Amino acid sequence: MTTTRHTGSDEGRTEASARGNGQGAVPLSAQDSLGISSRTELRPIHQIGAELGLDEDLIEPYGRGVGKVDLAAIDRLADRPQAKYILVTAITPTPLGEGKTTTAVGLSQGMARTGRRAAVAVRQPSLGPTMGIKGGGTGGGWSQVVPMERLNLHLTGDIHAVTAAHNQLTAMVDNHLHRGSPSGLHPERVTWRRVMDVNDRSLRQIVSGLGPAGGGPTANGPVRQTGFDITAASEVMATLSLARSLEDLRARLGRIVVGTTGDGEPVTAEDIKAAGAMTVLLKEAIRPNLLQTVEHTPALVHCGPFGNIATGNSSVVADLIGGRATDYLITEAGFAADMGAERFFNIKCRISGLAPDAAVVVATVRALKVHSGRHRVVAGRPLPEGMLRESPEDVRTGAENLRAQLRIIRRHGVTPVVAVNAFPTDFPSEHEVIAQVAAEEGARCAVSTHFADGGAGAADLADAVAEAAEEPSEFRFLYSDEAPLVEKIETIATQVYGADGVDLSPAAAKDLAAYTEAGYGRLPVCVAKTHLSLSSDPKLVGAPSGWRLPVREVRLSAGAGFVYPICGTMQTMPGLGSSPAAESIDIDDDGNPRGLF
Amino acid sequence: MTTTRHTGSDEGRTEASARGNGQGAVPLSAQDSLGISSRTELRPIHQIGAELGLDEDLIEPYGRGVGKVDLAAIDRLADRPQAKYILVTAITPTPLGEGKTTTAVGLSQGMARTGRRAAVAVRQPSLGPTMGIKGGGTGGGWSQVVPMERLNLHLTGDIHAVTAAHNQLTAMVDNHLHRGSPSGLHPERVTWRRVMDVNDRSLRQIVSGLGPAGGGPTANGPVRQTGFDITAASEVMATLSLARSLEDLRARLGRIVVGTTGDGEPVTAEDIKAAGAMTVLLKEAIRPNLLQTVEHTPALVHCGPFGNIATGNSSVVADLIGGRATDYLITEAGFAADMGAERFFNIKCRISGLAPDAAVVVATVRALKVHSGRHRVVAGRPLPEGMLRESPEDVRTGAENLRAQLRIIRRHGVTPVVAVNAFPTDFPSEHEVIAQVAAEEGARCAVSTHFADGGAGAADLADAVAEAAEEPSEFRFLYSDEAPLVEKIETIATQVYGADGVDLSPAAAKDLAAYTEAGYGRLPVCVAKTHLSLSSDPKLVGAPSGWRLPVREVRLSAGAGFVYPICGTMQTMPGLGSSPAAESIDIDDDGNPRGLF
Repeated sequence: MTTTRHTGSDEGRTEASARGNGQGAVPLSAQDSLGISSRTELRPIHQIGAELGLDEDLIEPYGRGVGKVDLAAIDRLADRPQAKYILVTAITPTPLGEGKTTTAVGLSQGMARTGRRAAVAVRQPSLGPTMGIKGGGTGGGWSQVVPMERLNLHLTGDIHAVTAAHNQLTAMVDNHLHRGSPSGLHPERVTWRRVMDVNDRSLRQIVSGLGPAGGGPTANGPVRQTGFDITAASEVMATLSLARSLEDLRARLGRIVVGTTGDGEPVTAEDIKAAGAMTVLLKEAIRPNLLQTVEHTPALVHCGPFGNIATGNSSVVADLIGGRATDYLITEAGFAADMGAERFFNIKCRISGLAPDAAVVVATVRALKVHSGRHRVVAGRPLPEGMLRESPEDVRTGAENLRAQLRIIRRHGVTPVVAVNAFPTDFPSEHEVIAQVAAEEGARCAVSTHFADGGAGAADLADAVAEAAEEPSEFRFLYSDEAPLVEKIETIATQVYGADGVDLSPAAAKDLAAYTEAGYGRLPVCVAKTHLSLSSDPKLVGAPSGWRLPVREVRLSAGAGFVYPICGTMQTMPGLGSSPAAESIDIDDDGNPRGLF
Repeated sequence: MTTTRHTGSDEGRTEASARGNGQGAVPLSAQDSLGISSRTELRPIHQIGAELGLDEDLIEPYGRGVGKVDLAAIDRLADRPQAKYILVTAITPTPLGEGKTTTAVGLSQGMARTGRRAAVAVRQPSLGPTMGIKGGGTGGGWSQVVPMERLNLHLTGDIHAVTAAHNQLTAMVDNHLHRGSPSGLHPERVTWRRVMDVNDRSLRQIVSGLGPAGGGPTANGPVRQTGFDITAASEVMATLSLARSLEDLRARLGRIVVGTTGDGEPVTAEDIKAAGAMTVLLKEAIRPNLLQTVEHTPALVHCGPFGNIATGNSSVVADLIGGRATDYLITEAGFAADMGAERFFNIKCRISGLAPDAAVVVATVRALKVHSGRHRVVAGRPLPEGMLRESPEDVRTGAENLRAQLRIIRRHGVTPVVAVNAFPTDFPSEHEVIAQVAAEEGARCAVSTHFADGGAGAADLADAVAEAAEEPSEFRFLYSDEAPLVEKIETIATQVYGADGVDLSPAAAKDLAAYTEAGYGRLPVCVAKTHLSLSSDPKLVGAPSGWRLPVREVRLSAGAGFVYPICGTMQTMPGLGSSPAAESIDIDDDGNPRGLF
């Protein structure tokens, strides 16, 4: 019996913690990812930059094999032709993840192996989950970004900078209240919380400002009920990932709404006079990090917004640079096509102005079997025996999910390609069914063994993607800026999720009216729902029909630039399991880390 | 009338916030420090490293003009002669600070100007106060470390790494309790809090773990009363600053006590299985940062432990490297000689094995006038008119404080040198008095204009220090490891502070007995008292006599390796003033920061 790491049940529900190497069950153990990384001889980062046509002055080295790319690169490269822009998305994943990141990295390596210039743009992993369930990872095996220990720890400090900027605003909000709230911000209407990049359930709900009250130097206060989210869930992270430039970031940060007055008027970070300091704190963090894959192809690693309540996409600026710096820019969006890809198309591309040429939908036999409704996997528990038996029937039944995800891609005018992320436990008959389903949907399909074989294992996939990208792109947004917010939600619910319609709670209807009234009606929407189903019920597998999307409330990310309807329970601060990965992380006798994987 | 920045009264009480450029009242405005920094052409950091005899492979660049030095340098340089080791300390400062950092930096530049090889080792500034009262600063004017904006923001992320390691332990402590506390750790006897590098009074006292209780995945808890300190006050920061190597750091982190069982048995980070992960999180942070002064001499910037409740000294490893890498290693200790220097001698040097050759005591006319008892300065208020009038008498009266601080240096067998940090508002007659007092105490004295004139202004000081360092060092600790803890406290109180004796509260006596019983009796002590007086009463200026040191309680930093008696109210989380510096910090039209100074 193949087992996966035993952990508690407390973690598997968030993008940040569910993201894994997508090969939890293969004999090449996860531990080997660190081994492969540490045995990889890093090329000087300027050499990697040169492959992107980036002049040496545009890359500031931050430790061996890591550089930060100056945003001046955007202008410097403006005359270069636009790269083919390839999105990597997936079918609805199991809680173990289906290997989107390894596939994206492997595909970029595969492009190089087949004689094409390519780069991959991915998110930076979050420290909390690294110490929690997963021990790290941006890719894995022979398709990973290195140096993985830097990548999985602090990298160049971008996430820490987001934490600092977010909490600087909170401190200024509380200080503003402490000093009599000149803006009129109402203490009980503050919605801005704090963030920390750690899995810490004890911080989800706190009361702050206890102790001596009053106006003197030893006074604390104001007493408020508040809490912490993980930094990936910070609106500052979402804002950083969507900003087009430092100036744009400055403007967006100023628009962040921290709460309202007693009359319901929004109070912004600009009103609190915090947006300038926040921008200065993020001055380095807005520059994408340049690293390399184990096969020395370029990797832009930048930002890590939560996939549930935010876009789950890496940064706009990384794609603006990468989009002119190579021939194929491969980027990944969090979770399945109904989640990350939909936001990629309708939010990220709306801001960046970039148009995708093809979208890879990663599928695994494991997840398709789960979508048959006949099997269930639980993070931290052994895979059920029945799932490891040859069963093309289960795969075909579960492939309804794949079909739905492919149609979501098509609906945006983009050409899909199915990538079968092959596991050693798969059977050829099962891969054959996936190929048949892809053909029935008119999509190219390739089996990829990039985890075990690196870029060579992704050569077929690279060829398929390159072909798909040659088809004329008919990329389109699913809704216009002008459409009313409720119509945007309905469009996504019916055309993407397959719902029959939307049920707004009275609170949600009130929220939408208030945001429209306050001038936020032109923003796109980022629906916060479970990533474990096309529907809003995580237990419904396959392609659920005959259901309606319930919207409990609607929140505003005015800085990032979207509203997000809440459909279900969204956990924005993970907890630690019964045996956190951190307990096994240590240094060895040579001072090298172990336990990251 | 000369004015200083107006801020609230909430910040001036901590080392982190009181540290300034020591020239708050000079016409060369503080804003110019950023201007000088940004006009300084940075030399490549390998070139600065080469001046220290550090091979290129030992310095990893982290952005332009910043490098991290591999600890392998300690062994690599082992055969090199030991540098003269110069401490920069001060008289009891006003809340404005008296310019120790500018003097240390200026002195290192002065050494170079007078044909000597020198380097300076200083602490990294804390982000909270940078955004709070002071807008940043490691040195200022023409005696500062550059690039100042990097230095004052995240630098290489060391402080963030300390935050992450500290809070990782807290999350694991709460998770340990959540899972039934296998170690027996008692929920109400947890002493380990959380940290954040921000001035945020609302976090001083919180209740965490609110919300749904129980054992399931959505449960929070345990509900506990706890709080946050600023990261500089973290025991992890103190531990990092005192570790001799990565292995030593690993062992020290394991010894951190997070609380006790119901029976009072200490529970450690090792028991919580967190020390390995904490070490991995600090793997980069233990490597000192190499920067340069505005005159391109080497500056090692590393760690920033709080000066009230910890050592207030930069790291042991930076001094172990710098001590073999140059001819004069100049380092700074927080606050006055009774505070930072005493800890430098009895704690830091005890661990490092290094022996100082001379100690510079920085004095200002401004502070000596305050020590006359005839004037009072308040951070954020205009200097009183009377203080700006020529008054050698006030200076002579106040010089009792200088005499006491010089004697503290002598008592440790070290040769003192008085550095007059000259202000444009000083009168020659006032400087003359300081020189007379120094002569009466048998100490060399030099006037230094390093803030306005850079190293050239510190040439006389450099000559005086070089002469002093030639005298044979008779460095000695004030107490032995074997002395009982209470005797160590009495020694410091009477021989350093000039107290008549120590008054232990019953709680303090019980603490000392418990620590001794638990095997911590050999540790040195780090007395937590006000830095604004030689006594424990911040209102007593000069050299107070006829008083006794009241010890309210005694705490343990088992990881850092000291016990700290609490004498007075120690604020370990600053607040923001009525007009925080952050409100003025922003980017300009070219995207460059303004408002740091």
